[in-house]
Amino acid sequence: MKTVGVVTSGGDAPGMNAAIRAVVRVAYAKGFRVLGFERGWEGLISNCFRLLNPRSVGGIIQTGGTMLLTSRCPEFKTLEGIRKAAENLAANKVDGLVVIGGDGSFRGALELSRETDALIVGVPATIDNDVYGTEETIGFDTAVNTAVAEIDKIRDTAISHERIFVVEVMGRKRGFLALAVGLTVGAEMILVPEVPVSMEEVYKTVKENAAKGKRSGIIVAAEGAGDTRKIAREIEQNTGAEVRLSIVGYAQRGGSPTARSRLLASLLACEAVNLLAQDIGKRVVGLQKGEITNIDLETSCKNVKPLNFEMLKLAKVLAT
Amino acid sequence: MKTVGVVTSGGDAPGMNAAIRAVVRVAYAKGFRVLGFERGWEGLISNCFRLLNPRSVGGIIQTGGTMLLTSRCPEFKTLEGIRKAAENLAANKVDGLVVIGGDGSFRGALELSRETDALIVGVPATIDNDVYGTEETIGFDTAVNTAVAEIDKIRDTAISHERIFVVEVMGRKRGFLALAVGLTVGAEMILVPEVPVSMEEVYKTVKENAAKGKRSGIIVAAEGAGDTRKIAREIEQNTGAEVRLSIVGYAQRGGSPTARSRLLASLLACEAVNLLAQDIGKRVVGLQKGEITNIDLETSCKNVKPLNFEMLKLAKVLAT
Amino acid sequence: MKTVGVVTSGGDAPGMNAAIRAVVRVAYAKGFRVLGFERGWEGLISNCFRLLNPRSVGGIIQTGGTMLLTSRCPEFKTLEGIRKAAENLAANKVDGLVVIGGDGSFRGALELSRETDALIVGVPATIDNDVYGTEETIGFDTAVNTAVAEIDKIRDTAISHERIFVVEVMGRKRGFLALAVGLTVGAEMILVPEVPVSMEEVYKTVKENAAKGKRSGIIVAAEGAGDTRKIAREIEQNTGAEVRLSIVGYAQRGGSPTARSRLLASLLACEAVNLLAQDIGKRVVGLQKGEITNIDLETSCKNVKPLNFEMLKLAKVLAT
Amino acid sequence: MKTVGVVTSGGDAPGMNAAIRAVVRVAYAKGFRVLGFERGWEGLISNCFRLLNPRSVGGIIQTGGTMLLTSRCPEFKTLEGIRKAAENLAANKVDGLVVIGGDGSFRGALELSRETDALIVGVPATIDNDVYGTEETIGFDTAVNTAVAEIDKIRDTAISHERIFVVEVMGRKRGFLALAVGLTVGAEMILVPEVPVSMEEVYKTVKENAAKGKRSGIIVAAEGAGDTRKIAREIEQNTGAEVRLSIVGYAQRGGSPTARSRLLASLLACEAVNLLAQDIGKRVVGLQKGEITNIDLETSCKNVKPLNFEMLKLAKVLAT
Repeated sequence: MKTVGVVTSGGDAPGMNAAIRAVVRVAYAKGFRVLGFERGWEGLISNCFRLLNPRSVGGIIQTGGTMLLTSRCPEFKTLEGIRKAAENLAANKVDGLVVIGGDGSFRGALELSRETDALIVGVPATIDNDVYGTEETIGFDTAVNTAVAEIDKIRDTAISHERIFVVEVMGRKRGFLALAVGLTVGAEMILVPEVPVSMEEVYKTVKENAAKGKRSGIIVAAEGAGDTRKIAREIEQNTGAEVRLSIVGYAQRGGSPTARSRLLASLLACEAVNLLAQDIGKRVVGLQKGEITNIDLETSCKNVKPLNFEMLKLAKVLAT
Repeated sequence: MKTVGVVTSGGDAPGMNAAIRAVVRVAYAKGFRVLGFERGWEGLISNCFRLLNPRSVGGIIQTGGTMLLTSRCPEFKTLEGIRKAAENLAANKVDGLVVIGGDGSFRGALELSRETDALIVGVPATIDNDVYGTEETIGFDTAVNTAVAEIDKIRDTAISHERIFVVEVMGRKRGFLALAVGLTVGAEMILVPEVPVSMEEVYKTVKENAAKGKRSGIIVAAEGAGDTRKIAREIEQNTGAEVRLSIVGYAQRGGSPTARSRLLASLLACEAVNLLAQDIGKRVVGLQKGEITNIDLETSCKNVKPLNFEMLKLAKVLAT
Repeated sequence: MKTVGVVTSGGDAPGMNAAIRAVVRVAYAKGFRVLGFERGWEGLISNCFRLLNPRSVGGIIQTGGTMLLTSRCPEFKTLEGIRKAAENLAANKVDGLVVIGGDGSFRGALELSRETDALIVGVPATIDNDVYGTEETIGFDTAVNTAVAEIDKIRDTAISHERIFVVEVMGRKRGFLALAVGLTVGAEMILVPEVPVSMEEVYKTVKENAAKGKRSGIIVAAEGAGDTRKIAREIEQNTGAEVRLSIVGYAQRGGSPTARSRLLASLLACEAVNLLAQDIGKRVVGLQKGEITNIDLETSCKNVKPLNFEMLKLAKVLAT
Repeated sequence: MKTVGVVTSGGDAPGMNAAIRAVVRVAYAKGFRVLGFERGWEGLISNCFRLLNPRSVGGIIQTGGTMLLTSRCPEFKTLEGIRKAAENLAANKVDGLVVIGGDGSFRGALELSRETDALIVGVPATIDNDVYGTEETIGFDTAVNTAVAEIDKIRDTAISHERIFVVEVMGRKRGFLALAVGLTVGAEMILVPEVPVSMEEVYKTVKENAAKGKRSGIIVAAEGAGDTRKIAREIEQNTGAEVRLSIVGYAQRGGSPTARSRLLASLLACEAVNLLAQDIGKRVVGLQKGEITNIDLETSCKNVKPLNFEMLKLAKVLAT
């Protein structure tokens, strides 16, 4: 018999619970024992876990957050912390560990894989969608829909008051969320960290739209695209338009996962357990060309997922 | 035959369209003509309006914002502006004017009523719920539910990360929204402008909860309760808890109105037209003791609606 | 010290959990012990309960259903069953019992009150809103909004296909839900059990609307208003319109309670415990003239809550 | 200059408006003229259309239904009808026609392509997801989420009453919707038309679950999987469980499209116009291996899209 560990790490994402559920039930169907480590790496270091069986993960597929809790764990950035985790894996006879999280968690997993015999497989779950090796991460579709639903509401006020709204969505380093949200709310402009913002172009577009009779508008900006407070103020000063800022907050990270986030979580978690069942580790599972597959853990950690610039161009055409 | 004008003024609120629809259709059933003035007081000053019939208000009961648009209008704060509006009412033979808006709009309506023969009736619509003479304003129920839905999502992250979230909701001067939201999300604390915040008490509660094993929590704060950024930082510094701030933005002002906001809009607008049909003006319609009624416009303007402090106490008991 | 029992009975309604939470926490603040009986009357008969403290009811204010479970219990319709329940109340030294449910449950409570010394207070929770003594029951606002959201979607298809939709909502005997839903979706017609359906009038309205260019439409019908399948077919046959039937199902009974259902649950449950604390029983708490109050249990059971026919008339005017 | 026609046909699907918007704006960016034919094939036969420019499609990306209306059109099943449509295309100098609809509409398009010189490209939009040549159709993701949200609510009642719910979702011939919904609500069983239902197996599963302590459950059944009323009754009679039926109705076909349905609509419509710009017709655009591509129209019409039976098996494992 095998023992599989499962842990959620880093920022929570909707669908993490669906992934835990699938890990447990697929593993159980194969006759494995499952240990759920709590509070991310912290639980591995402090050996805090509980045995999970199919009943322990009932009624969670539709819930946000993570039943195993999560945390940022500075101790895991030290070799000492990693070794303590490795010892606990050995002490509990964990043959394979499923790490559900984002790229930061996978870098931790890579370090850990060098100190342990346990096989490690990463399941990408983050609303940022910035993991190399998968077209989509668990939670991304939910976060996009949450932000879209909120901006659909903001547009009511934008139209009624004939105002421009700068709406900031999450994404400190990457613009995946801003791009998907901007395109699907029909934003007049989308500002992402990957493309330097030309304020002159922003002013020009706002003025051209006003000339066309489009006196209201939505500008979706990723957190990392610049100081949105400043951007909003400068647009107002340079275009004569009335401009407001609205920040879509932590709600993007929570809430009941969409069907797609639940499905992706189920499929990716299943693939992760299948790899472990075949004694394969150091992999990250993912969606590539529409199919569930997996890539090398180190390759995932060391590469940067490219943004789809064609889509950014299309968004511009569609906003005419 | 009578001519009724209708205008939406000040900040938009979900249900304004349902109110416009009811004004038009009830007036039409009585054989009145209806003029819809655009962009709030601006439309009265610039004589910008359109004739509205039952078909013009089809398909809007479920929409946020206001089809008549709205604005803040500085010119209306001058006697000259008000007189221009009065002249236009006379020129268009408007016998009665329905003003859909908040207390600021009603103060404008009171000024206008002194310069015109047209009868004026106010229909309270604002997410702030701060109009004297009505237990509830159009849009309030929707805004509460929007904020509640968002905070329900934030709680997923609060629990998963064992964090305290300070969540700021709208309300620069009054705490009606914060109180209703805080009580119905089960917030650990509610901060309103009407009650000075004792930071010592906040720290104490956070620490007591932690001691009880409640390591996550939601503190709902009205905009006007203080600098939420500072509040969040100070809680973190003084309690050892991990604290985050999330601001519920302009989405609170938009979105499809709830059934209750639609119903209230329909009933209040109907009452407003009924008053005009009886040649009664200078009134504000409202919900009092659960029934549709109306009070003097000046009385509404000159009084301050009290907050329900009993409910604030109950919220505390329920958060134990 | 006092011991308070709490039970949810009959059909579940969103907000029952918020009510349980408030019963427990308000009782606890008064120093009472709380027993939660499971599966409705069944739990009283079989003496199946658990001790509830403030922590046991954490994280449930936003959940649908009832954590205490519920059931229809035929045994409780016999004197033997009722006496067994009374014995268990005595054996557990229950001084007061809070019954959360609808009018059927209150009739049971009335029977029980004749066999026990425990004081009994009813808290009205049913999506049907048919309890005499309260303007609104817990769960009603949620059910209305669920049905409204669904019908808002159906209208997209109605308009795109230029069809009439007959939409059946819950309400075997009473039309409260159908009326509130119909008025707030802007239904072209509302069919309730309290008013015999004149099919001739239905045909006439459909034809008149078509003549006005309104080729799509929504007819909201309570379950008890007639055989909706037959109604839909007959409208099609007698008007030439394309007609479809859509039944809003059990989703009306579940889901996260709206802010209003949560608030009403909190306030009514608080009132119930306050009555018990004053040694008052045989009451049903309720909302009357917008205020929390209570009436005699027997009076509530023996009277029929009237439908607001004025509102039905207004709905007609608004649908022009 | 080129003239492009666009038509929505067959059952409406959420995202059709987003597709119309993208057709118009992408075509306009290329300097094309766009004619929107109304009410599906009916508009082609009766030559009923309107000129569309970027402003005509503003504010529709987030709306359900189709602004061009749609219908089932028996006349188009006759050669005479098809030829009338072809004549109108010629009379209006339509070089290319974008047909937004499902497989029935594409069979019509194929017939039409034999009688006209206009190039025809199909854009798959149907909640059934049953078009060969695309992994996903416009509207499918929205319908899945609508049904999932509804079933999440039904589960509250299922759990509170310890009942089995048979929930019928759309899908007369195919089980794509039922499978996706069933897997993502964590249904205990999924019944699809592609797999004969073994009632004995259903009874066995219900009984085994009860033995495991799982007394509530959800069985998702496609319309075409059998008579759900009968299925529900038989399960009750043969297992002793309390069973209810709930039918998810026409709401599945409407509502604001999800981000994914909007995105897919935008990308597929863009591809369709790009094909026409290259003088390519008789194609159906689609998503294959996660990428936007296109296949031969006749191939799409003559082949049957396979259901993913692996996913059906996984659903079973996950429901343990």
